[in-house]
Amino acid sequence: MSQFLLRPIGTIRTRYASFDDTPVQAALNVDEHAVIELDASYVDGLEGLGEFSHAWLVTWLGSEQGDVVPEPALRQVPFLLQRTGQEVGIFAMRGPRRPNPIGLSLVQLVAVEPPRVTFAGVDMLDGTPLLDLKPYFRDADTPIGDVHCGWYDSIDLGGPVTPRGLGGSAPSDST
Amino acid sequence: MSQFLLRPIGTIRTRYASFDDTPVQAALNVDEHAVIELDASYVDGLEGLGEFSHAWLVTWLGSEQGDVVPEPALRQVPFLLQRTGQEVGIFAMRGPRRPNPIGLSLVQLVAVEPPRVTFAGVDMLDGTPLLDLKPYFRDADTPIGDVHCGWYDSIDLGGPVTPRGLGGSAPSDST
Repeated sequence: MSQFLLRPIGTIRTRYASFDDTPVQAALNVDEHAVIELDASYVDGLEGLGEFSHAWLVTWLGSEQGDVVPEPALRQVPFLLQRTGQEVGIFAMRGPRRPNPIGLSLVQLVAVEPPRVTFAGVDMLDGTPLLDLKPYFRDADTPIGDVHCGWYDSIDLGGPVTPRGLGGSAPSDST
Repeated sequence: MSQFLLRPIGTIRTRYASFDDTPVQAALNVDEHAVIELDASYVDGLEGLGEFSHAWLVTWLGSEQGDVVPEPALRQVPFLLQRTGQEVGIFAMRGPRRPNPIGLSLVQLVAVEPPRVTFAGVDMLDGTPLLDLKPYFRDADTPIGDVHCGWYDSIDLGGPVTPRGLGGSAPSDST
């Protein structure tokens, strides 16, 4: 079976050292700022990013060792469904324990000051490795036609939400 | 330096065998259908996905060998700027030749019939490895505040666009 190798291009610095206290979606915690420290060798890749208001952060949510870990459960209870205990397939949720633990966060760009990029919208642990940074491109990133968001449509979201705030972090929990 | 390992979870089947003829953004080719063939071992992860209208396909755009290849240029001319020749930083564009060649495509779900998922919005070569499938979650995936899309705001997009249609595929070209 094929395997592909990734390398971090930088590190995300936030005030969250504990998974249980980290907001579960950047969009639910839009007022907080955090910083990308890009590796110096990639700084030239930031040219032009300052003219974008938003970007996608593609992050590594797996172990630091980078080993292929045992497969996570393919059905999990999302954090946001903790109260009901409903399980859904991992490809119908955004939780971190996935076959390939890649995270995707839409953030608002606050300042591009190479090698640092300050952004608003924080849902990452301090030290999260950054794999890629892609500009938000409205024509590509806006759904066409009616939008239905499955089980998300049944929940009521307010401000920042954390695993702890939702009642703890049982092993089967994720966004 | 850390390295992280990924494995394909499935394969994308499209009618495009040549990079030069493949549309450069799924959102610019919304009428065409293609199919994900998920590996049988991941089928349980699709539970609930059928209730979503849209999803993100996270794809591998690098070599089949998965080796860490030589670093791509950090400034490139995007396909869509071919006419002007303007270079931008790789983190201010969406092209495939990136430090970590991860692709991100928003597609419309047409049918979830495990292990196959049919979708509309095709910008992938036939045989592209799928790394992850994430449901579109409006609250997380809609930018908050004013949206500016840098150099994309200066171009006029119509229907499907291909590298060939834009005048060929010089090595420095990408979306």
